[in-house]
Amino acid sequence: MNSYTAISLAEKVKCLDDFWSPKIVASLNDYHVKVVKLKGSFTWHQHVDTDELFLVLAGKLVILFRDGQVELRAGELFVVPKGIEHKPVAEEECHVVLIEPPGIVNTGDNPGPLTAETDAWI
Amino acid sequence: MNSYTAISLAEKVKCLDDFWSPKIVASLNDYHVKVVKLKGSFTWHQHVDTDELFLVLAGKLVILFRDGQVELRAGELFVVPKGIEHKPVAEEECHVVLIEPPGIVNTGDNPGPLTAETDAWI
Repeated sequence: MNSYTAISLAEKVKCLDDFWSPKIVASLNDYHVKVVKLKGSFTWHQHVDTDELFLVLAGKLVILFRDGQVELRAGELFVVPKGIEHKPVAEEECHVVLIEPPGIVNTGDNPGPLTAETDAWI
Repeated sequence: MNSYTAISLAEKVKCLDDFWSPKIVASLNDYHVKVVKLKGSFTWHQHVDTDELFLVLAGKLVILFRDGQVELRAGELFVVPKGIEHKPVAEEECHVVLIEPPGIVNTGDNPGPLTAETDAWI
């Protein structure tokens, strides 16, 4: 009998090198589950074709919208609807799970220095 | 400016009445994020058309397969591929996030007394 191995999100986070650079840890049909560590302010952007799920594992994440904001702590999630501009901000290091379809560029419609490799596994 | 509310998975779990009865807490495009509390042994079943993601929030979950098993603790996830027979077992109460498309019956191809309402929100 085989003993299959669960995926530890905390262990995967430990393997991350760069902030703001999501890495895939699992696939679910046509979706990717990613981990990312955040610190500081990201760029304003939107994903025109897809919602994006944020689940905080550790730390505090604030997501700014043009009309408000949401604060997430460990064990809390929020789904940013497609086409909604948002700007993630983490005053201190924050660990997050993202779930979204393949091919999503982290900076969405606003590429720049923080644009990371897309669809890389860890 | 609006202050949007994050979804606390632990708070949602507290609202669950029945074991083995997943309830939707968020949608992500055409997928549902659910919470469920488990205790005891579920039925052998498979989902022929979709993978199913299990993420443990609290407790220990064992998923049996015909050829082995996987053990998951808090912060660990596993994706059961579509068409793979599985039987979740939780010796003690266990809290789990499930992510899957709409319309998925919890008992898959093996309906019975543990078949729960599909696509109910909490």
